[in-house]
Amino acid sequence: MSRVYRLVISCPDQIGIVASVAHYIAEQGGTIVEANHHTDAANSWFFMRHEILASSIQDGLEAFAAGFERVAQQFEMQWSISDSGRPKKIALFASKESHCLADLLHRWHERELPGEVVCVIANHEDLRSMAEWYQVPFHYVPVTPETKLKAFSQTESLVQEYGAEVIVLARYMQILPPKMCKDYSGQVINIHHSFLPSFVGARPYHQASERGVKLIGATCHYVTEVLDAGPIIEQDVIRISHAHSIEDMKRLGRDVEKTVLARGLRYHLEDRVLIHGNKTVVFDV
Amino acid sequence: MSRVYRLVISCPDQIGIVASVAHYIAEQGGTIVEANHHTDAANSWFFMRHEILASSIQDGLEAFAAGFERVAQQFEMQWSISDSGRPKKIALFASKESHCLADLLHRWHERELPGEVVCVIANHEDLRSMAEWYQVPFHYVPVTPETKLKAFSQTESLVQEYGAEVIVLARYMQILPPKMCKDYSGQVINIHHSFLPSFVGARPYHQASERGVKLIGATCHYVTEVLDAGPIIEQDVIRISHAHSIEDMKRLGRDVEKTVLARGLRYHLEDRVLIHGNKTVVFDV
Amino acid sequence: MSRVYRLVISCPDQIGIVASVAHYIAEQGGTIVEANHHTDAANSWFFMRHEILASSIQDGLEAFAAGFERVAQQFEMQWSISDSGRPKKIALFASKESHCLADLLHRWHERELPGEVVCVIANHEDLRSMAEWYQVPFHYVPVTPETKLKAFSQTESLVQEYGAEVIVLARYMQILPPKMCKDYSGQVINIHHSFLPSFVGARPYHQASERGVKLIGATCHYVTEVLDAGPIIEQDVIRISHAHSIEDMKRLGRDVEKTVLARGLRYHLEDRVLIHGNKTVVFDV
Amino acid sequence: MSRVYRLVISCPDQIGIVASVAHYIAEQGGTIVEANHHTDAANSWFFMRHEILASSIQDGLEAFAAGFERVAQQFEMQWSISDSGRPKKIALFASKESHCLADLLHRWHERELPGEVVCVIANHEDLRSMAEWYQVPFHYVPVTPETKLKAFSQTESLVQEYGAEVIVLARYMQILPPKMCKDYSGQVINIHHSFLPSFVGARPYHQASERGVKLIGATCHYVTEVLDAGPIIEQDVIRISHAHSIEDMKRLGRDVEKTVLARGLRYHLEDRVLIHGNKTVVFDV
Repeated sequence: MSRVYRLVISCPDQIGIVASVAHYIAEQGGTIVEANHHTDAANSWFFMRHEILASSIQDGLEAFAAGFERVAQQFEMQWSISDSGRPKKIALFASKESHCLADLLHRWHERELPGEVVCVIANHEDLRSMAEWYQVPFHYVPVTPETKLKAFSQTESLVQEYGAEVIVLARYMQILPPKMCKDYSGQVINIHHSFLPSFVGARPYHQASERGVKLIGATCHYVTEVLDAGPIIEQDVIRISHAHSIEDMKRLGRDVEKTVLARGLRYHLEDRVLIHGNKTVVFDV
Repeated sequence: MSRVYRLVISCPDQIGIVASVAHYIAEQGGTIVEANHHTDAANSWFFMRHEILASSIQDGLEAFAAGFERVAQQFEMQWSISDSGRPKKIALFASKESHCLADLLHRWHERELPGEVVCVIANHEDLRSMAEWYQVPFHYVPVTPETKLKAFSQTESLVQEYGAEVIVLARYMQILPPKMCKDYSGQVINIHHSFLPSFVGARPYHQASERGVKLIGATCHYVTEVLDAGPIIEQDVIRISHAHSIEDMKRLGRDVEKTVLARGLRYHLEDRVLIHGNKTVVFDV
Repeated sequence: MSRVYRLVISCPDQIGIVASVAHYIAEQGGTIVEANHHTDAANSWFFMRHEILASSIQDGLEAFAAGFERVAQQFEMQWSISDSGRPKKIALFASKESHCLADLLHRWHERELPGEVVCVIANHEDLRSMAEWYQVPFHYVPVTPETKLKAFSQTESLVQEYGAEVIVLARYMQILPPKMCKDYSGQVINIHHSFLPSFVGARPYHQASERGVKLIGATCHYVTEVLDAGPIIEQDVIRISHAHSIEDMKRLGRDVEKTVLARGLRYHLEDRVLIHGNKTVVFDV
Repeated sequence: MSRVYRLVISCPDQIGIVASVAHYIAEQGGTIVEANHHTDAANSWFFMRHEILASSIQDGLEAFAAGFERVAQQFEMQWSISDSGRPKKIALFASKESHCLADLLHRWHERELPGEVVCVIANHEDLRSMAEWYQVPFHYVPVTPETKLKAFSQTESLVQEYGAEVIVLARYMQILPPKMCKDYSGQVINIHHSFLPSFVGARPYHQASERGVKLIGATCHYVTEVLDAGPIIEQDVIRISHAHSIEDMKRLGRDVEKTVLARGLRYHLEDRVLIHGNKTVVFDV
């Protein structure tokens, strides 16, 4: 895969945005590899993402970005540009269940995950040897009701130390403190083992069994201060029947959980997710 | 399709049920076309359904049923037997939206729906000519807050007059009175345009859009006194994205609604659905 | 839905295309409602589709198109512009099976299908009354091996008479003559009841049963001179098991067939399908 | 999960089979945990599988089996009984690609896979350290056109040495010699990265891209002497579009491949798959 710059924009909708942006890119000699637009008609808001071949931008990323500032100001854009050659740093938070962690580490190891896993932080020791086989530093930070504050302060220090830009709750089973949710807004990704908004909170498969649903699912979303209520990135479901016990549901559900988390995380790492209010625009491929 | 008898059983689980039932069927010369069992381990309850070739039962349905009573008593069975040659009578309730009604009428007309549509009852006149093309009696029973009681009394009289055994709320948009829900318990089938238990009540697609989900769905369920909370028969979903407006969601959703309703209704008509508490066992094919 | 112009472009890829097109649209005051790009890196080919609010183009469609010719020539574009206010005229070809015809007529009647059904042409009389209920002219043109040439000459005359721009083979079961395939290249849409390229030709469900597949499907594609080998627009599948007879497969398959055909046809009617060689780019929503 | 015996039967269909089998099980005090029947009407063949609680069979498996022989002879049954407490031994064959191997080893490690992985045999060294982390013996047996015969003789010796009862080709990329296919008939499971019968043989994703399909898939099947033509156990698909490159297809396909293989293998390990001719009956949960 060729190195690309990812230019991501959102702004109030008006005539001329695309022309101005496209004109600027062409002026800089930029070869567009992928382009996506979306107009949210209800809110009159415009979203745009470009992948531009890095080798086609002769003056480099910084000069490109500096020059783009003019266009951005004209249209009151929120914007960012990132470089696929500098992948985002990821901290994986885990507990005892291994399926999501193992899946993400394997994808990263096989160079499928377009990010850099810098550390695993877990509140149990169980997954240490797995992390270590992948040569990823493993930090055991136990969390108890009494030590919660201190534990999360330590956790945050680790995140900062490693320069992590994305936190993935890979079935971490702990609720982050509100301040941390705020400080890392749009940077913490969770996998919830239900098709939200159904079955918020604990033991969603038990809730699903209780209600007698015919499909179970998983939801990848950004973490906010309200439990399981943040912007949804990706969801999927799998069919079940009366013949499936809760154990069966957990087994089938694990496959959905890890796939949905991996997809959602990839979208985030490639800057394909634009948060707007409590919803997302996802320019997926 | 050959004519079959459908023997449906549920009872407390214990050793010897299958042997006794199978022995009785064999004794009567019955050729089993399809057989399904399910043991609900959590509740120690047993469910069973057989399709028996009618032509193989020489003494006829009534003698078969009379003889079976002995087996049934031994195991404290709830049971029933039905004859595919005597399809259930269906009353379709509709309002203005035509997609579910048109779909069911067409399937019935093509002999795909294993039941007999005996009438359409609607609170608007819009779908009269459609029903009439299919040569199904159409009854216009308007419902207003003031006339609700009288309207439903008239509706119930019609249902009785036609001898309807199943009521299908094909996007009927009216809430049945509690007494009617009770009297026709396990006989009224609704299609709700969301993946329950998410988005109960009015305007589920608006609720889905508000929450920013990535899949929308539909649920076919038995109607109980609690709105959208009855036993679920069938569900399905379809993928959406930020690019879909509420209008798009309605359009895509219609396809899911009508398919899910048709599937759920077919299961019911073929006695494939066993209600247990607020859940269903569905022996589908 | 607001009236829009749909500008569809394909051309060799190079820098500056988007800028020039976007600049021209902005210059004309055009409000872009939806925009999609695709670069086929392997073939260095570029594809683009815009929906532009008709009311925003003050000088009207013809002036817009005339002015665009300059841009088009510069980039050697194949291009077209259409007006959602002038829906494409559709001739539906049918035989005896009603599910696809009934589905399309119903969608059209409910204003879901963004086209205008101008006639039904069938080689059997069975579906006449259905077409007539929808007030669509029905023409019975029987086809036998002996009369095939004459029949298709009559068929083509009817298509021309009605000014049909799209021919839909709604389970028509006849193979069009090669010349007609050529003359209407990119305008004839077929639904094949298998997941192509598996099970080309006759009795695909029998072939599927023979091979013991675990999913069956349907394919909507453009008709070319080679049977079931034209560019694919849309496909979908449904799960089956050993428990499904060929009759069950036909029943389940019908739901997939009609949904896939309706989706593929909608894409075509909204100019969302760009043919390139034997493949399609589908800018779907 | 409680320990169970799995009684699997197939025989010509006739009246009294179920009664006799159920009677024998009840006589032995057997508690039936799960039961599945299937009658193949076209071939007049009957299939049946029971899970019986081991603790309910007082005289043990061998006495149960010995006594059952009488019933089996009466109905000319092909039958087997297995003990979930004695899981099947699995030899995993791999090459360079890790996703299927990593997935199966992880499931096995987490006790999700109801079998015992006894060795990994690979024609490349790449996956040695992964196997070793899971403490599974790894054997490097290179295969070249010249050494093929000798290599497979060595491979077969290893399989025998380890007492492997199932061979899984986890993207092994080598074609087994005809004799080995025959000797291990019904015991070698392959994952092919297409929705068979489409795209047999090499580079199926390239073939899929060439044909322009809108879904790609994977097929888990028993290996026979004819390439990619053996009885299908499980299949699934995932949606793609024009926007997906062959690299994208490979990435998306890997998720389908590993899930389909894991499902198919689980069915086999739990004796849920009954082969009949070139087709399978799969009593899945």
